[in-house]
Amino acid sequence: MSPNATAGEIDRAARGAREAYDSARQFPASRLAAFLEAVALEIESLGEELLETGDRETALGPARLAGERDRTIGQLLMFAALLREGSYVEAVIDTARPDRKPASRPDIRKMLFPIGPAAVFPAGNFPFAFGPAGGDTASAFAAGCPVVVKAHPGYPSTSELFARAVDGAVRAQGFPPGFFSLLHGDRAEVGRALVKHPGIAAVGFTGSLVAGRAIFDAAAARPHPIPVYAEMGSVNPVVLLPGALAERGQAIAGELAASVTLGGGQFCTNPGLVFVIEGPETARFLPELAARVNDRPPCVLLSARIGEGLARAVSATLSKPAVALMAGTGRPAGPGGPFPPTVMRTTSASFRDDPGLQDEHFGPVTLVVVCESLDDLFRTLPSLHGTLTATVHASDLEKDTARALLSLLREKAGRLIWNGYPTGVEVVPAMHHGGPYPATTAPWSTSVGAAAIKRFLRPVAFQNVPQALLPEALQDANPLGILRLVDGDWTRRPIS
Amino acid sequence: MSPNATAGEIDRAARGAREAYDSARQFPASRLAAFLEAVALEIESLGEELLETGDRETALGPARLAGERDRTIGQLLMFAALLREGSYVEAVIDTARPDRKPASRPDIRKMLFPIGPAAVFPAGNFPFAFGPAGGDTASAFAAGCPVVVKAHPGYPSTSELFARAVDGAVRAQGFPPGFFSLLHGDRAEVGRALVKHPGIAAVGFTGSLVAGRAIFDAAAARPHPIPVYAEMGSVNPVVLLPGALAERGQAIAGELAASVTLGGGQFCTNPGLVFVIEGPETARFLPELAARVNDRPPCVLLSARIGEGLARAVSATLSKPAVALMAGTGRPAGPGGPFPPTVMRTTSASFRDDPGLQDEHFGPVTLVVVCESLDDLFRTLPSLHGTLTATVHASDLEKDTARALLSLLREKAGRLIWNGYPTGVEVVPAMHHGGPYPATTAPWSTSVGAAAIKRFLRPVAFQNVPQALLPEALQDANPLGILRLVDGDWTRRPIS
Repeated sequence: MSPNATAGEIDRAARGAREAYDSARQFPASRLAAFLEAVALEIESLGEELLETGDRETALGPARLAGERDRTIGQLLMFAALLREGSYVEAVIDTARPDRKPASRPDIRKMLFPIGPAAVFPAGNFPFAFGPAGGDTASAFAAGCPVVVKAHPGYPSTSELFARAVDGAVRAQGFPPGFFSLLHGDRAEVGRALVKHPGIAAVGFTGSLVAGRAIFDAAAARPHPIPVYAEMGSVNPVVLLPGALAERGQAIAGELAASVTLGGGQFCTNPGLVFVIEGPETARFLPELAARVNDRPPCVLLSARIGEGLARAVSATLSKPAVALMAGTGRPAGPGGPFPPTVMRTTSASFRDDPGLQDEHFGPVTLVVVCESLDDLFRTLPSLHGTLTATVHASDLEKDTARALLSLLREKAGRLIWNGYPTGVEVVPAMHHGGPYPATTAPWSTSVGAAAIKRFLRPVAFQNVPQALLPEALQDANPLGILRLVDGDWTRRPIS
Repeated sequence: MSPNATAGEIDRAARGAREAYDSARQFPASRLAAFLEAVALEIESLGEELLETGDRETALGPARLAGERDRTIGQLLMFAALLREGSYVEAVIDTARPDRKPASRPDIRKMLFPIGPAAVFPAGNFPFAFGPAGGDTASAFAAGCPVVVKAHPGYPSTSELFARAVDGAVRAQGFPPGFFSLLHGDRAEVGRALVKHPGIAAVGFTGSLVAGRAIFDAAAARPHPIPVYAEMGSVNPVVLLPGALAERGQAIAGELAASVTLGGGQFCTNPGLVFVIEGPETARFLPELAARVNDRPPCVLLSARIGEGLARAVSATLSKPAVALMAGTGRPAGPGGPFPPTVMRTTSASFRDDPGLQDEHFGPVTLVVVCESLDDLFRTLPSLHGTLTATVHASDLEKDTARALLSLLREKAGRLIWNGYPTGVEVVPAMHHGGPYPATTAPWSTSVGAAAIKRFLRPVAFQNVPQALLPEALQDANPLGILRLVDGDWTRRPIS
């Protein structure tokens, strides 16, 4: 275990980031793009050592980690491409109207600039894609923001490898040394001190609700509060309508069991709640689901601690009067052993009455909520808290019901999935990986996809500033050739 | 004085807003646009009664209030036009790639939806443009969000007139009755209870730092925190370089005196700090500025309370050792009387050492900070806190210095003004009226201009959802004809 960063080390990292920011904030997008590409290359050159170290520390397996490495590199290159295209600065120009009465209208032009040094808290369950050079760091870098990473205590050596890769790119690209630094710590004080440091201007966090809320509270209590983008996991409800179960109940049982156990269930998009309606289709489906879940091998979790926490959480849920075990045992066969996929069930009335039934079981566990009727389902779903995703399975004959369901679930979730499963998050511009609290602390923001960069940018408007003093993105000639909103029209043309 | 809203009234208003939201969130943009247009018409029909009541309660005078009414109506119509055009939902579509290996890529489409009922706290200094039907309310309405307004205690009857206008539009357009409601209160508990109500999903606030921070803290301490968009005023530094003073010092003295006293200085864009550099130009300029300020008549403020608070604040500042009075007296001639425009001066060293010198003097008061040299100016400006605007006056020969100044001030402000004055905020798409804390609690957001609507929207992504169940904005046919990012290209074309 790496020792906890001292107050002096935290201060040095945050000050170094602020110093680095003073020069890096002037870098053109092309230079930031070259840096991201260099980081991607450096990660690639870590080769087998990265996969081996990652597997040793997280037990996620070389296949999964190889895929995650591709995604990590892909994210960096996606932001590089976004920067080279350039329109992400959202330039808006309203030219002067000297003849306007009673007073002339000035020339006003705005675009996005970096917000300042960012603190990033990587996730325990994605040591690469949400690791020290993962999505939060990549999007902050893309915005032009230096990053101080508080490494996840679950994979300190993997984190050091990423730090080596990023440091290599910092040197190779002539970036200021404080542009990236890595701190270790398994005590909450380390993260809190970092978030409270006056040099830090924004926070990206991926992890548990308890840890995320502590970071959010610390930032909100600063003399000068800063934005916190915390993605804190989620229960990802899946609604299975009877028609869908009648049509393809067997397939759904197998696919859902696979989704619940994918990555050992340690995904923020893990389907943790399944809503069904009493009836013959459900009566056939639930034993099928239990069988498919029992078919699956026990899952090796990220750490023994996670397995113990999960067993405690499942045991607490099972101790509630209206909750019953449907599949699995809810605890490892032996201490530190693999965790058997587990399904519990409860009633809609209990679910409505007990918000505790919405607590995430982080692992291969799901809770089936049996509703008495369609009306009962619509009475129950409004109790849901904010969540990253919500899924509906329906047959073609159930489209009217499905429309009403999607409309209701839209208020709860950041992504709605049709006849599919929430696990698997595409890194594309249309992706939204966010949602109302407690899914995140900033419902407008996403931590996956190109829009993640917006968390680390803020607009600045320029009034009557001469051409020579304007940033290129706002100059009449549009030397970057970006898409701009000019006097109400979207165009790449220069202003003549 | 209207009595303070009771807990029951607050609860009723917030619940009513939530109920109204359940239907209003389904309204198409065209219906919201028609509603905004109806509100504008209703405000127009208030006629002279609005101006007379507003003037009686705020003493802002009929000319200023007539202009402010035009702006208020203009804002509503601007948002109506934005809705009718439709692209504000920021539709992004990445179509499926069934052939992608190893797994097919799903169809993902996202757009913005309303965030939920908003609480709005109008400003004391803009009873119309930031009143109960002002910018915050208009942008929340445009987003499809019901609004509960906590009226400013400075103009309760004016607020009731606006409520009458909005209620008229609610009835005429068949909107649900809870879509708008108005609460009164001059005690902090009223606002706090509203912000803490589980029915409220976002907050718009314009006012003082103390009140805004209290609202922010209350929202952050909720079991489920919600975003707070508080614009809390600002000191709006103006930097006057020697070349500009040499070229047009006399003009600047007169214009700056006018800007400091415009609206009795009760603007969040009031120039509250002026930075100059010791030298012959400044030696000539400062007496000129003092004379022009002394030339101006005393200002009738919004209320006797504001005058008393301002006199106390100026007296506290003047009691500091390195602060001297340059013009005006810093207090009204008699109790409740008009306030003489006042200029104080201090040294750059005192300014750097005493963050209290950045406290806003809300009224016709400014503080000149005299720097010893250009280097000293660059040493001093980094101490500035976040602010809405920053202004630079320079001659053509000072462009290199000005470039460095603009770059530094960009980190502090939301809008940079060249050879002008911060008062006067254009309502155009390129406007950014925001800035780092303490100017606002959300540096990415603006409370003026079309982008203000984004504060009350959040994205939702749809994965593999059939055409018939997608919102129109995301359907292949693009029936709304809006601009969308489709597979990486901005286009209004349908997907074939």
